[in-house]
Amino acid sequence: MCKVITLGEIMLRLAPDGYYRFVQANSYGATYGGGEANVAVSLSGFGIDAAFVTKLPKHEIGQAAVNRLREFGVDTSLIVRGGDRVGIYFLEKGASQRASKVIYDRKYSAIAEASESDFDWDKIFQSANWFHFTGITPALSDNAAAICFAACKAARAKNLTVSCDLNYRQNLWSREKAGEVMGKLMEFVDICIANEEDAADVFGIRAGGSDVTAGKINHDGYKEVAQSLVKRFGFKQCAITLRESISANDNNWAAMLYNGTDFYFSKKYAVHIVDRVGGGDSFGAGLIYANLAGMEAQEGLEFAVAASCLKHTIEGDFNMVSADEVKKLAAGNASGRVQR
Amino acid sequence: MCKVITLGEIMLRLAPDGYYRFVQANSYGATYGGGEANVAVSLSGFGIDAAFVTKLPKHEIGQAAVNRLREFGVDTSLIVRGGDRVGIYFLEKGASQRASKVIYDRKYSAIAEASESDFDWDKIFQSANWFHFTGITPALSDNAAAICFAACKAARAKNLTVSCDLNYRQNLWSREKAGEVMGKLMEFVDICIANEEDAADVFGIRAGGSDVTAGKINHDGYKEVAQSLVKRFGFKQCAITLRESISANDNNWAAMLYNGTDFYFSKKYAVHIVDRVGGGDSFGAGLIYANLAGMEAQEGLEFAVAASCLKHTIEGDFNMVSADEVKKLAAGNASGRVQR
Amino acid sequence: MCKVITLGEIMLRLAPDGYYRFVQANSYGATYGGGEANVAVSLSGFGIDAAFVTKLPKHEIGQAAVNRLREFGVDTSLIVRGGDRVGIYFLEKGASQRASKVIYDRKYSAIAEASESDFDWDKIFQSANWFHFTGITPALSDNAAAICFAACKAARAKNLTVSCDLNYRQNLWSREKAGEVMGKLMEFVDICIANEEDAADVFGIRAGGSDVTAGKINHDGYKEVAQSLVKRFGFKQCAITLRESISANDNNWAAMLYNGTDFYFSKKYAVHIVDRVGGGDSFGAGLIYANLAGMEAQEGLEFAVAASCLKHTIEGDFNMVSADEVKKLAAGNASGRVQR
Amino acid sequence: MCKVITLGEIMLRLAPDGYYRFVQANSYGATYGGGEANVAVSLSGFGIDAAFVTKLPKHEIGQAAVNRLREFGVDTSLIVRGGDRVGIYFLEKGASQRASKVIYDRKYSAIAEASESDFDWDKIFQSANWFHFTGITPALSDNAAAICFAACKAARAKNLTVSCDLNYRQNLWSREKAGEVMGKLMEFVDICIANEEDAADVFGIRAGGSDVTAGKINHDGYKEVAQSLVKRFGFKQCAITLRESISANDNNWAAMLYNGTDFYFSKKYAVHIVDRVGGGDSFGAGLIYANLAGMEAQEGLEFAVAASCLKHTIEGDFNMVSADEVKKLAAGNASGRVQR
Amino acid sequence: MCKVITLGEIMLRLAPDGYYRFVQANSYGATYGGGEANVAVSLSGFGIDAAFVTKLPKHEIGQAAVNRLREFGVDTSLIVRGGDRVGIYFLEKGASQRASKVIYDRKYSAIAEASESDFDWDKIFQSANWFHFTGITPALSDNAAAICFAACKAARAKNLTVSCDLNYRQNLWSREKAGEVMGKLMEFVDICIANEEDAADVFGIRAGGSDVTAGKINHDGYKEVAQSLVKRFGFKQCAITLRESISANDNNWAAMLYNGTDFYFSKKYAVHIVDRVGGGDSFGAGLIYANLAGMEAQEGLEFAVAASCLKHTIEGDFNMVSADEVKKLAAGNASGRVQR
Amino acid sequence: MCKVITLGEIMLRLAPDGYYRFVQANSYGATYGGGEANVAVSLSGFGIDAAFVTKLPKHEIGQAAVNRLREFGVDTSLIVRGGDRVGIYFLEKGASQRASKVIYDRKYSAIAEASESDFDWDKIFQSANWFHFTGITPALSDNAAAICFAACKAARAKNLTVSCDLNYRQNLWSREKAGEVMGKLMEFVDICIANEEDAADVFGIRAGGSDVTAGKINHDGYKEVAQSLVKRFGFKQCAITLRESISANDNNWAAMLYNGTDFYFSKKYAVHIVDRVGGGDSFGAGLIYANLAGMEAQEGLEFAVAASCLKHTIEGDFNMVSADEVKKLAAGNASGRVQR
Repeated sequence: MCKVITLGEIMLRLAPDGYYRFVQANSYGATYGGGEANVAVSLSGFGIDAAFVTKLPKHEIGQAAVNRLREFGVDTSLIVRGGDRVGIYFLEKGASQRASKVIYDRKYSAIAEASESDFDWDKIFQSANWFHFTGITPALSDNAAAICFAACKAARAKNLTVSCDLNYRQNLWSREKAGEVMGKLMEFVDICIANEEDAADVFGIRAGGSDVTAGKINHDGYKEVAQSLVKRFGFKQCAITLRESISANDNNWAAMLYNGTDFYFSKKYAVHIVDRVGGGDSFGAGLIYANLAGMEAQEGLEFAVAASCLKHTIEGDFNMVSADEVKKLAAGNASGRVQR
Repeated sequence: MCKVITLGEIMLRLAPDGYYRFVQANSYGATYGGGEANVAVSLSGFGIDAAFVTKLPKHEIGQAAVNRLREFGVDTSLIVRGGDRVGIYFLEKGASQRASKVIYDRKYSAIAEASESDFDWDKIFQSANWFHFTGITPALSDNAAAICFAACKAARAKNLTVSCDLNYRQNLWSREKAGEVMGKLMEFVDICIANEEDAADVFGIRAGGSDVTAGKINHDGYKEVAQSLVKRFGFKQCAITLRESISANDNNWAAMLYNGTDFYFSKKYAVHIVDRVGGGDSFGAGLIYANLAGMEAQEGLEFAVAASCLKHTIEGDFNMVSADEVKKLAAGNASGRVQR
Repeated sequence: MCKVITLGEIMLRLAPDGYYRFVQANSYGATYGGGEANVAVSLSGFGIDAAFVTKLPKHEIGQAAVNRLREFGVDTSLIVRGGDRVGIYFLEKGASQRASKVIYDRKYSAIAEASESDFDWDKIFQSANWFHFTGITPALSDNAAAICFAACKAARAKNLTVSCDLNYRQNLWSREKAGEVMGKLMEFVDICIANEEDAADVFGIRAGGSDVTAGKINHDGYKEVAQSLVKRFGFKQCAITLRESISANDNNWAAMLYNGTDFYFSKKYAVHIVDRVGGGDSFGAGLIYANLAGMEAQEGLEFAVAASCLKHTIEGDFNMVSADEVKKLAAGNASGRVQR
Repeated sequence: MCKVITLGEIMLRLAPDGYYRFVQANSYGATYGGGEANVAVSLSGFGIDAAFVTKLPKHEIGQAAVNRLREFGVDTSLIVRGGDRVGIYFLEKGASQRASKVIYDRKYSAIAEASESDFDWDKIFQSANWFHFTGITPALSDNAAAICFAACKAARAKNLTVSCDLNYRQNLWSREKAGEVMGKLMEFVDICIANEEDAADVFGIRAGGSDVTAGKINHDGYKEVAQSLVKRFGFKQCAITLRESISANDNNWAAMLYNGTDFYFSKKYAVHIVDRVGGGDSFGAGLIYANLAGMEAQEGLEFAVAASCLKHTIEGDFNMVSADEVKKLAAGNASGRVQR
Repeated sequence: MCKVITLGEIMLRLAPDGYYRFVQANSYGATYGGGEANVAVSLSGFGIDAAFVTKLPKHEIGQAAVNRLREFGVDTSLIVRGGDRVGIYFLEKGASQRASKVIYDRKYSAIAEASESDFDWDKIFQSANWFHFTGITPALSDNAAAICFAACKAARAKNLTVSCDLNYRQNLWSREKAGEVMGKLMEFVDICIANEEDAADVFGIRAGGSDVTAGKINHDGYKEVAQSLVKRFGFKQCAITLRESISANDNNWAAMLYNGTDFYFSKKYAVHIVDRVGGGDSFGAGLIYANLAGMEAQEGLEFAVAASCLKHTIEGDFNMVSADEVKKLAAGNASGRVQR
Repeated sequence: MCKVITLGEIMLRLAPDGYYRFVQANSYGATYGGGEANVAVSLSGFGIDAAFVTKLPKHEIGQAAVNRLREFGVDTSLIVRGGDRVGIYFLEKGASQRASKVIYDRKYSAIAEASESDFDWDKIFQSANWFHFTGITPALSDNAAAICFAACKAARAKNLTVSCDLNYRQNLWSREKAGEVMGKLMEFVDICIANEEDAADVFGIRAGGSDVTAGKINHDGYKEVAQSLVKRFGFKQCAITLRESISANDNNWAAMLYNGTDFYFSKKYAVHIVDRVGGGDSFGAGLIYANLAGMEAQEGLEFAVAASCLKHTIEGDFNMVSADEVKKLAAGNASGRVQR
């Protein structure tokens, strides 16, 4: 029986309806999300026992975040309650040539202000066998970085598999700081996930010949990136998602996996986007599931990419799909015909 | 003066807004629809006198179904009131690689539980000259099949033209049962309509060389299918709709018609889908209209395909277009420019 | 310091949600818009001091129109209050092969019924240096045409730059009347803007070899059109927007500019449409801004086209974009990637 | 078998949600209503065959009005299609001390601009036995008054019972004009309905000792009013609704009836208002039904008052209640307990 | 550590917005509820460990019911998945003199069709100390009654406290059948809860001198009812809720408790109703909490009544209040002043 | 010509629809408000030239706050742009015995973090003759208190009338700190406004014999409070609003005014509440208007109370009423009859 623990921040996400701009909004759809919470929800949807660890205020906005996680089957019993703020992010959905916009209002949130003593990792990891975090958590604050470090150390001590999505956010920290802090955390990491830009942003490792803004991906370049990462940090697996942005509505989506020996490339999906936030997280969750389910490398990669392809068709941060739905798509059923 | 009678079930359709999944729904859009009701609404919109025959409970949910039909000009005076349930179907709209999903909750509905004596076909067909049903009606229950048979017999006796859309639904009955029951009903049918899979599902008649899931259509194969159907059942016309599913958002849509002598193929529309439920029904209604209006075979086929192309751009089961709008599109005005 | 005055009608725009047809509407989204008001809002968003001149009833529906303009920074202090009606237009958004539909209910509006004495142009133009109107304003009524003429004369007398978007509307007046009235107004105009059909509709000047309904544009033909217009009316600049309608969802969008010497063609955008109403107005505003900001011809044209490309992604008549956002797109960032 | 014909205008009603003010409205609920249309819908709900006569434009807004009437079972086959405008009224719902506000935009509507020759009353009244109109119809325009007069004459000639609700609207005509025109029409009327102010506004007949604004009603005063009306115009019945306005949320509601011999007073309902527009119309429909159903005077009055009491709890102009529901309330079941 | 198990049906509740009637509904708010599920949610909100036992289909509508319960902290791990239907109830909210209406469509639901072997009560009650059910569960079907009986027997064998809310529903079974089945189940019940009519409906035990429809309650009569119930079935406690229905908007709400020795009457609340469905269930949950928390009789009764008073102000079946909020109201803070 | 300057914070207000609780919210209505902004909007609605001074981030959420103010005619040209956060408050509307709840998330907002040098009061007050602030502004932070002090000093120097609403907020500061800071600011204040609890909270001045929670007001006690305040701080006028809370839906609302010589008591309104937030602010604005318009004491007080009575019927913080509407109510027209 597997149990995955993820650590991070869950934010209140406030998004105008449809394609309305911020200045047009008379109401905001209110959902909750955050890199690691999204992974926990995905895994729960796949039938995996997943717990999310964070700190949330005792008031009703904090409770609402807890309730959303419970709704989708995530174990919330390890969440510490206290602090003042639930982090917020405002999301304006882009269309065609107009890009989506995110305004963060997450400073001073309960988890950013939490202290190491809030979390007893030995107890948290008691019945767990996997720990996942992303580069956002240590970027929240020095406190959060220290909490993250403590978690990683405890996870290693208890022989958990540790996965990390680099997830660089330029408005949370500088490339320099990110490189320094993430560099130290990488020593505990078994499986590294990155998008087509993270390795360059965090560790200065660049893929030659790609121009992601122009929707051009160079496979050989990404092979080199994965090799460099594995060489430098000793990961057992390194996965890179490959997004080609044609417009805010249309993206191509694929990924590669390097297990230290072989390179695997997934099929590529031409995605008509409903909501792309959480796309990377759903890939990470897919890869964790693939590992826990004992899938072969190519099969697992296809599962992870299919899972994240479906995420792009679902409103909100959370990927609400079953493992069966993912497997059907991975097996080739992508025509979108009505299922009665 | 023409009057068309259609017989079947009208259901309450409950669909989450936009692309929300069932598990995200805090409200359901409530419309009404069903294969034969949809045909009646389409015909009324084209200016044809159309009545829908069914059984509906006396309570307000049943009344709401009646009101929706009246709203769009359908004669509801022949509807029998009684029974307990209005059939329900839940619809989740798909996007990109994620397929639409339908959950039926239509068992034990008033029409499925109705008895032959509820309907006096001599009276119902009094001033009618066309009778239409689909393969869904006899699939509802043995009672419904018997009612359907009685209607067909009476229609033949009164010299009405009888049209039938095969409309196979695997969750209502098996292929075997469908083949057996539909086989008997076909002897009364003048015009047969089918989609690219129905003939295979119901009568085991297959088009070679097509893979509809992959969006590949083989014209010669469908010619053979139509020929086989006409040969076996003696239809005056046999029409087959040809859908190529590229994704849940994008389909190609066309149709062919065989009148026992010649084969006609319509132009093909690349449709960006708003709502594809009822697409086939709107084709059927278009074909009935074309016959009633005395159009030539190719012209009539183009009308039917244009009508159903437009249906894909309209929310709900009902095709709310005028004959003029259809004719404009069939005549080539497909650019979607603003009409002021 | 620049101040632009625009003169025209602002209407209550009533549009069903999403892709619902008029006959399905149980509520209407209520926004406000109109060619010249849209230009004023655009300019205000670019940081230009813009005032809109019209007549609006004193009641709350009139006040709501004023409030919407104020909300987006337009100076409304010159609006005359009085009369009975706010003009209304009903808008049904098209999809795929189904065209958008506009039903006008703008007859007898306050501005159409206004008299010349309602407006004191010397005072209105006191601190202004630009005057803009479109072919819709004189089409509203003979009164409105007279008001427009008075404004043009005063603008010329005060040495304002005068720009006009031909904007032919067939349901407001005939081609003959339009040609006659607009012909007289053109003598005051410095910069003329037209879409791919206006010159033909208003002045009978046609581009050879184009079929706009089929999405086919002939560059040489439009060069001739611009040359003819400039030759006939002595414009300093003549800009023509070039729309290729693929479907109600997808258009190609570009423009050309002729300054009496050289022809400039913008890059062409493949636009996935959110709302195309006001597309031309946002181009006009972009061109005015480009002139006021002292941009070079090609740079200015690219700015205007990028601005109007973005408009197609925004709900409502108003283009709510900043000059910075436009410049980014004009500079090539069209991938629609999330901006965090 | 009874058939009631009503003549008048049906308008598009645009109302902000809930208690929002006009200046806050970003959308308007879109329903349809008008005094005589409301009566037709009420009667149809009671099971009476009712037809509504008017003129409506051929466009989709006109069609939507037709569809709404059809939805609730009203015969729309006598409606003349043509003209430009559907009349509009904007409604802002009041609360507590803030009154509801109505802004009319109904001038130049199709029915106001209709001509006498649009209607062939002999044909319209062919199978009818009751004609109903209100004081709003002749107030629309001189044309409409002439149409109304022609209808009354034809109704009398065919021995229909004629009922009229005085329904004075000060923004449509002056008291003088109303008195003059209505005076002439009264000679054809059998049953007169008025609210507590109409008789004074139209005919200068005042109830002593009442202050309706202060929620004070003087029974004896209204007896005199009814007597004066009957004496002057020879009505067979004269009914007066008695509204006591406590606040925009709370009204008392009752009515009296005078049949030339006896006075009847209904019980009084303390109504917590959902929507009071159409309250008087629903009373009129109740009274017509009571007459057609052969109820005794007191029983009929109680039916009419109970029907209109229920109307106050229903959103929109239309009273969507069955005769059974009204009878239950009239019989004393006013506790509002859940009916399972 | 306390754990409460409740057994019953959770239905999809479909309710038009606000005060709209069924025939006006274009969408339905979709929530979930049912007597025993509502109790579980209430208890979870009070901090009690509560599990709900039922059978639900495996499809997404069944999953959504599970998710709603999880959202509010209810343990759903004991729910059996299978069967075809989620029971549905349609709810139309009444106003003023118009009563709320419920249309049940719950026949053939998964729990009604479940078999005794679906539930292993020894395992279900493993760590529980309280079992609660209502009279609705055995009314669903003979199967459900048998399941209920088995649960009661197992609960008694394991020494759980058993509480039952009589909750008579006339559209589920006759008074005779209810009396017979419930009579047998009562022998296992320790705490009996009833509303002011249940005892009469189920056991023919009537309170003299009350007329609930007229909002008149006779205290002495209810004392006799409670005494009769306790005498006949040997309950340790018998609580009766006392609702006085003034209108659909306004009710008075109170309760009495008889512990075999003394009678306790709560204070009475004048409630302005938001949603009264689940009012009785929230009282039951309050009483269970009061017992588990060791409150004195009067204190416990006041807690239960305050809890259910608050329920009337909350949309949906579920009472989303904390024990603290209830205690504040029970302590007298009923002024509704803003809490900042 | 009068110009009023108000200084404070404008927050994003996020409120669930209707009576939904925070934990039920899937969307939040997004409006903007804050004590002093509300006053500026009220005054603008009365026709007074009003400017609001604050600091707001440059991003779109900040811009949206600016736009809302502009929409209602407030001069926003003095707003400083910069800082990170727009303050937020979450509002849950109470009903019946359930109180409304406010959760503040306003710490670290741009205005709380602003510095004295952000504001040049000489320039700001250039053409002004009135300055208004409330006790919330200095409570935001020490910086904000210093800014407030600087503003008061400059206002006095420029001979502006200064008004202050005590507006004590316990979650922003302690009673001690409030007393100390506000004590110093009072020396600049000409007109003091307080609710029935502020004087006690801030200055320890208590009204004997009132229990506001129980809806009991002692007039003599409030006379003493006003006298003590005037005596201690030398105010020219001291007004106290008197709220009697019957429930979250129903309040009585009145006020008293003391001008150092005489006491004035307004009429008392029984208000059925739509939204009570901003009730006090609308009273303050009414009083300022009354002074600027030169009303007599009693007349001015009645105007202010009628204005704030109407505010309780309007959604959002802003009081969107005209001076005419207020005068009609103050003159006695409180019956809420429809105004056509």
